[in-house]
Amino acid sequence: MILATDVPEWHRETDVIAVGFGAAGACVALGAREAGAEVLLLERASGGGGTSANSTGEVYLGGGTPVQKACGFEDSQEEMFRYLMASCGPDPDEAKIRLYCEQSVDHFHWLVGQGVPFKESFYGDGSYIPTDDCLAWSGSELNTRYAGIARPAPRGHTAQREGIEAGGELMRALCAAAVDSGAEIVTDCLVETLVQDADRRVVGVLARVDGEERFLRARGGVVLCAGGFINNKDMISRHAPWLNRCRLRLGVDGDDGRGIRMGQGAGGEAIRMDTACIVLPYTVPKKHCKGILVNDRGQRFVNEDAYQTVAGEIGLRNENGQVYLLVDDEIYERPFPPVEFVAVGETIEELERDAGLPSGILQQTVATYNAHAEKGEDPLFHKTAEFLKPLTKPPFGLLDYRVETALWSVFTMGGLRTSVDGEVLMAEGDAVPGLFAAGRTTSGLAAQGYSSGLSLADATFFGRRAGQAAAAGATS
Amino acid sequence: MILATDVPEWHRETDVIAVGFGAAGACVALGAREAGAEVLLLERASGGGGTSANSTGEVYLGGGTPVQKACGFEDSQEEMFRYLMASCGPDPDEAKIRLYCEQSVDHFHWLVGQGVPFKESFYGDGSYIPTDDCLAWSGSELNTRYAGIARPAPRGHTAQREGIEAGGELMRALCAAAVDSGAEIVTDCLVETLVQDADRRVVGVLARVDGEERFLRARGGVVLCAGGFINNKDMISRHAPWLNRCRLRLGVDGDDGRGIRMGQGAGGEAIRMDTACIVLPYTVPKKHCKGILVNDRGQRFVNEDAYQTVAGEIGLRNENGQVYLLVDDEIYERPFPPVEFVAVGETIEELERDAGLPSGILQQTVATYNAHAEKGEDPLFHKTAEFLKPLTKPPFGLLDYRVETALWSVFTMGGLRTSVDGEVLMAEGDAVPGLFAAGRTTSGLAAQGYSSGLSLADATFFGRRAGQAAAAGATS
Repeated sequence: MILATDVPEWHRETDVIAVGFGAAGACVALGAREAGAEVLLLERASGGGGTSANSTGEVYLGGGTPVQKACGFEDSQEEMFRYLMASCGPDPDEAKIRLYCEQSVDHFHWLVGQGVPFKESFYGDGSYIPTDDCLAWSGSELNTRYAGIARPAPRGHTAQREGIEAGGELMRALCAAAVDSGAEIVTDCLVETLVQDADRRVVGVLARVDGEERFLRARGGVVLCAGGFINNKDMISRHAPWLNRCRLRLGVDGDDGRGIRMGQGAGGEAIRMDTACIVLPYTVPKKHCKGILVNDRGQRFVNEDAYQTVAGEIGLRNENGQVYLLVDDEIYERPFPPVEFVAVGETIEELERDAGLPSGILQQTVATYNAHAEKGEDPLFHKTAEFLKPLTKPPFGLLDYRVETALWSVFTMGGLRTSVDGEVLMAEGDAVPGLFAAGRTTSGLAAQGYSSGLSLADATFFGRRAGQAAAAGATS
Repeated sequence: MILATDVPEWHRETDVIAVGFGAAGACVALGAREAGAEVLLLERASGGGGTSANSTGEVYLGGGTPVQKACGFEDSQEEMFRYLMASCGPDPDEAKIRLYCEQSVDHFHWLVGQGVPFKESFYGDGSYIPTDDCLAWSGSELNTRYAGIARPAPRGHTAQREGIEAGGELMRALCAAAVDSGAEIVTDCLVETLVQDADRRVVGVLARVDGEERFLRARGGVVLCAGGFINNKDMISRHAPWLNRCRLRLGVDGDDGRGIRMGQGAGGEAIRMDTACIVLPYTVPKKHCKGILVNDRGQRFVNEDAYQTVAGEIGLRNENGQVYLLVDDEIYERPFPPVEFVAVGETIEELERDAGLPSGILQQTVATYNAHAEKGEDPLFHKTAEFLKPLTKPPFGLLDYRVETALWSVFTMGGLRTSVDGEVLMAEGDAVPGLFAAGRTTSGLAAQGYSSGLSLADATFFGRRAGQAAAAGATS
């Protein structure tokens, strides 16, 4: 932090400064421009896009979007609200969830208005969409537990593009819209620290542009939208050390927590810093959900139709990442991403022995599972009938989904505590004057129990609102 | 936060201000007085003691203390270090653990020097000591996992007094020592906020004494030692919502997180805010560890000789607090604290049915457990042989240890990030000038995997060091 009184000269003055040009930054700029503010959008990389550009480009939207309707799915704000309140971890941010559900259809139209293409089509085989289709089940909506709470509807809306990295398409559109909006974009620009008045109001930033220090003043506010902290091993170690064990960190270099740290330094509170989206990638092909996931004792621990982020969270935190998927010859197909067998055999006993599991437990587990699956039941975990099938056709195989060997992927969900307008809040509840944040720099809609598309929902919806709020600060 | 320039007048000036008069505050005062500083010790309650006075008065000490030696236990710094590094959660604070292990014997003598009485006697039946004995096993040292890493030694040192609230005796001694040291103690004094210079240095506090605002200046530093946040439901909800489900919050009114919040407001980083000491109170009588703990599916989930805090952490986080203890007629004895049966019967099948567990699983669990216990083995969880006994003597009973009904107790372990000298650190790693913290206002030796006595170790050892460091700030 630098004090405003120590600033030798302001090199530039504007209404709103956005720090980071991913999905959140683009929407901050768009929101601020809509509100008539002058905007400076600073990005440390050489171009916009951030982690969002490498993502699946899926936005969680519902309540009856045109795509949902065209594909024949009924949905409502209330059902969406009930699902998110039940699934987004204990004590989720109700204010954010409520507002997002109320305005989700409007937000869909706004995204379309920015040039994001959504095809009116449904992809039924999973949440990763290799085609150019749009709508998919991207969470736990169909699971017995949630289906009993809210009428299920698919809400993952993926930008139209062939391949699983449709985030590129989403960001092409949002970056172009940000440029067209008249926001001034400065790349290769690392924000070093915030500048604060003596009374704590954030009035600007110190940035490094082409190797030179530049003091940039923001009349309305500074918006931190600089990603999460999955690429900062020290921060992970301090807040959620188990995440360092996952092999695939979903983030660009910029996801080093700098935005969060700047916010904390200004007195902002970081919350849910232990939470993350943890993907155990066992659901491609989808029919592998007919297998059973077991821990290294041979016990089941989750309904295998659980969304892969839920299985990942439980698998890593509760089962120490030591998990296997048991398949039989009938359901096995080459998985994506590829994963090895630890054991293959004609009997479960062989698997147990070859995998070094305690003798007898996996055999019991399978016998129990099969006996119930035969009747279309799963009294232990209530997997839905669609995925219940006795595992009886040899050879059997135990796929090695241990965290050290399989390609678990992860990004952080914890961050600055913000109001629905993106104000950065202190532990006492007041806002840090002049400071806003959005996207993965904040704790958002979901803490635990992630459904795909919620992170881009945070970034785009609350990013836009943060931009509007910061703009209001310039004119007030 | 109030700016020093806005302070109308300083009502008092001293070297070191300690905020809170529990075990940490007393040792802060003692440490600062040892270093020759003038000390003002502020307490919001009407007297000293804090939560420590209501505790079991157990301090985790080892490496060969006189009590360990007198009782015939060998221990060393290295063994203690290995145990704590392995048990205090993933990525524990190595610097704090190392220093504490190196100086633990000295710390024992220092406590004795302050008048804390430790009898040279061993209590073999558990960590809660109803006699006036001193030494007890207060963690997971004897568990198969840890015994393979470090040679076990009991390290819980309880102050000498009859009854399980020996914390009163500990605090009687430490409070008297603080008074004798010449620290000035002001009770009924609520610290409202910190006072900071424009450059962020903490220079004092605004306190309310007898209803009047008093600005108190600290030349050396302010030490926040105001307890944890278990009695602040909003903070719990933001950081560790599952803890709000535990019925017994171990803390006084002052454990409302005010110290942590003040530190965060000054730019300090709070870490491990999701962690807590969670006690599942099933180990009195000790022979109940021969029973088996099961979840609401009828599966075992932990070695039942686990320390009760470890079983509590796993039971609440992984098993959603839905746990039962199965006992047979041979091992059953009235538990303390009292707990009800959900089911009693001549067969395990009856228990399953009466308790509403899925049919057949508990029967399998017991059959498997018994078959192995017969041979003195526990391939699933490696419970030590001492507690392995087939559960075969009817009637059987399922004790209701669910978090809604049994008396789980809990206190928070997360807090301000501090150096070994108690400096409050920012997310970027620099210290907030003039600000120190100790005790449960900080994240300390243990994050997860709590062993009893570590919290008083944090408070007393690092409290004293924080006081010394703050004192050095006054004279430098």
